[in-house]
Amino acid sequence: MGDWRTELDAKAEAHAQEFFELLRIPSVSTDPAHAGDVKAAAQWVADRLARAGVPVVTVADSPGHPAVIGRWEVDPAQPTLLIYGHYDVQPESPVELWDTPPFEPTVRDGMVFARGSSDMKGNLLTAIQGVEAVAAANGGTPPINLAFIFEGEEEIGSPSLVGIIREHRDLLAADAVASADGGQYDETTPALTVALKGLAGLQVNLRTANSDLHSGGYGASVPNAVQSMVQLAATFHDAEGHVLVEGFYDRVKNLTDADKAEIAASPFDEADFKAKLGLDELWGEAGYTVRERIWGRPTLDMNGIWGGYQGDGVKTVTPNEAHLKITCRLVPDQDPAEIVELIRRHVEQHRPAGSTVEVVPAKGAASPYVVDRGSDLYRAATAVLTELYGKDPMLVRAGGTIPATAIFKQELGADTITFAWSMPDSRAHAPNEWYRLDDFTRGRTAYALLVEELAR
Amino acid sequence: MGDWRTELDAKAEAHAQEFFELLRIPSVSTDPAHAGDVKAAAQWVADRLARAGVPVVTVADSPGHPAVIGRWEVDPAQPTLLIYGHYDVQPESPVELWDTPPFEPTVRDGMVFARGSSDMKGNLLTAIQGVEAVAAANGGTPPINLAFIFEGEEEIGSPSLVGIIREHRDLLAADAVASADGGQYDETTPALTVALKGLAGLQVNLRTANSDLHSGGYGASVPNAVQSMVQLAATFHDAEGHVLVEGFYDRVKNLTDADKAEIAASPFDEADFKAKLGLDELWGEAGYTVRERIWGRPTLDMNGIWGGYQGDGVKTVTPNEAHLKITCRLVPDQDPAEIVELIRRHVEQHRPAGSTVEVVPAKGAASPYVVDRGSDLYRAATAVLTELYGKDPMLVRAGGTIPATAIFKQELGADTITFAWSMPDSRAHAPNEWYRLDDFTRGRTAYALLVEELAR
Repeated sequence: MGDWRTELDAKAEAHAQEFFELLRIPSVSTDPAHAGDVKAAAQWVADRLARAGVPVVTVADSPGHPAVIGRWEVDPAQPTLLIYGHYDVQPESPVELWDTPPFEPTVRDGMVFARGSSDMKGNLLTAIQGVEAVAAANGGTPPINLAFIFEGEEEIGSPSLVGIIREHRDLLAADAVASADGGQYDETTPALTVALKGLAGLQVNLRTANSDLHSGGYGASVPNAVQSMVQLAATFHDAEGHVLVEGFYDRVKNLTDADKAEIAASPFDEADFKAKLGLDELWGEAGYTVRERIWGRPTLDMNGIWGGYQGDGVKTVTPNEAHLKITCRLVPDQDPAEIVELIRRHVEQHRPAGSTVEVVPAKGAASPYVVDRGSDLYRAATAVLTELYGKDPMLVRAGGTIPATAIFKQELGADTITFAWSMPDSRAHAPNEWYRLDDFTRGRTAYALLVEELAR
Repeated sequence: MGDWRTELDAKAEAHAQEFFELLRIPSVSTDPAHAGDVKAAAQWVADRLARAGVPVVTVADSPGHPAVIGRWEVDPAQPTLLIYGHYDVQPESPVELWDTPPFEPTVRDGMVFARGSSDMKGNLLTAIQGVEAVAAANGGTPPINLAFIFEGEEEIGSPSLVGIIREHRDLLAADAVASADGGQYDETTPALTVALKGLAGLQVNLRTANSDLHSGGYGASVPNAVQSMVQLAATFHDAEGHVLVEGFYDRVKNLTDADKAEIAASPFDEADFKAKLGLDELWGEAGYTVRERIWGRPTLDMNGIWGGYQGDGVKTVTPNEAHLKITCRLVPDQDPAEIVELIRRHVEQHRPAGSTVEVVPAKGAASPYVVDRGSDLYRAATAVLTELYGKDPMLVRAGGTIPATAIFKQELGADTITFAWSMPDSRAHAPNEWYRLDDFTRGRTAYALLVEELAR
């Protein structure tokens, strides 16, 4: 095999410019106003795959945003690696908290600041650029079969992914999946993710009178939707951070002593964690360490609340509606649909007097997922990370959710390993999201090595 | 005295057109973007007063919105009546709930639908048009001395009113004040307001981490600002609707048996009240009737709440800030500044772990007010209402607040009687606000009669 390392070195600056180009497309999947931008990003990724030499590339339509699919079939005797990622990003709001514009990538201190830098346009390009280099050095084709799927709906829970996979199953058949959506432990320590949480989301809509009312004429005697929502929302947790929804923990596989020991093996500096977040006190389920909570315990999180007047000054209104957004992070063997149903019952049971309540399930539920540690890909990924970082990877669990992982197992029978480079504190989903340029450089090498490692 | 009734009849249509013209000016005082409209409305009112024949008219500047002041001095032997009102209106939001545009007055079933129709551009014009007619019929000047003050900041709590009154005290000196801001009992029953509540307002700002965070990476272990705000906000009331802020009721003069009997003398149909609001159940402080609560008990009302993501779909964010707007309706002898301080202490004492909290007092506090039933104006107003409606007025109390009333007592030594025509269920401060054209017609007559009645 030829010298793809020289090739990657020579193209470092050009590859970074491609990264910035992709970051400038505001592919916010949750906001219908950005649908055109999401489509533009899909076409950009498709064009880039084709330029890498991938012979079959298609932009696959869906009821929502399109996915980009590619296949590079070289030898039926070789294994097939499917590389997964997403080109959509979270909303940039609140935009006023960004130090530089969210869709104009800015480099400071070796970091690229932009929405989507860490989650996950940088990681996506490391995969394409890495396999491009190893194919070029190998005479124009990679040493194993490759498939690609980059979706545009990860940030809204991948609602179309199952349909797209079913429709393009032939192009996507694979022995294993590498997800480029994820990260490493820190700048110098590699990590392999051995479990991911599931996700269930919903919105609670609460209504009282048939109109907003004057608080002087009515406030003393009618249910106030904001007050009612506050009373309802306060019933979801006890003072020790336990979720009070009946049945919420019934299917939870509790952490074993071995699980706890493995979790404890990853160093964690609570003082540093708090200092970075500007917090004097943490919060969470009593009886578990911070790491156990994030990695191995389910949660019910309020992502947004609103009702009544939010403008300047005073409006003496008795509001007649209020809204609450909830997502839950799930662990084995919780089921997302069942969790939504349990919350619906909880909301009905705790309905404040005089109000009507409605629970609207969100699209894009995801089951929790546990990695197969006996697979070839797990072995290959371990070898590459150990070589690149000079030490064994830490075994970590993701507090986050990659719905695709469970979907690939179910639809393609393939296990997924997360193989990606973002840092844990890189403000994904928040203002001033960042990504290290050094990790971008290293990630390309890692994908080239992974493809070599999997070749028989 | 000449025949002002014929004059008013002849001008009925022209007077209604003036009303619509004033309604088309979106004089929303709480929104800085509408400052120009508020000013335009002030100039419109000043021009209208001058056209009525008022010899001294001035638009009085203030640190906020201007007030319109007028004086019509005719005879030092006659009493002076000061007529008060406001030309500013509440915000039109949520605009999508209006059946017709809020600033395009639309007549349906004898009612004018528009923001400010009931509160209180209609009432304002009945006063001007009524005294204009009686002056014209009296040879060009009214039989008593008149003064006028129409402010542009009532809906934000009249923060500049004291300053304006002090600066223009000579023009405003009066024996009594008629406030055109208020209403009648129903279409066929007159009412005299014998007490008004006070008002105290504030905003609670709660912050946790130094950034919004990814709920997967952090949700299980850091305080969530929305959840923290919900926990805090749930501490303000008990399950029976009592306010739990320590000291809140300490200065409250409890309703006497005589007060309760007077309140009970006003018929109140609870089933109808609920049906009109689309409510199955009411809410409020246990131990009091609905009317006692609205007319005679203090409240703590949440007017708005917000934090985190409010858009379409899912955003898996752990929010780092949340906000709550509160106003309190006060009764004798509660003090607005003291109430804000008690709430500030309550918020500090119930600060959720890991959060910082801040209480920002709102402008425009108002003291509660009780009417002097022995005054000439009280007698004259009673006589006019009895003549116009053919029965004695009901003695009512206002759940709402007219800060001006307490200010006139303090600054001018003058008692205020509410003399106005809005209906209780006219959706003031809410979408589809309305005002009866018949009340507009009758209100003009009432102001003409009141001026005659007060002449010695």
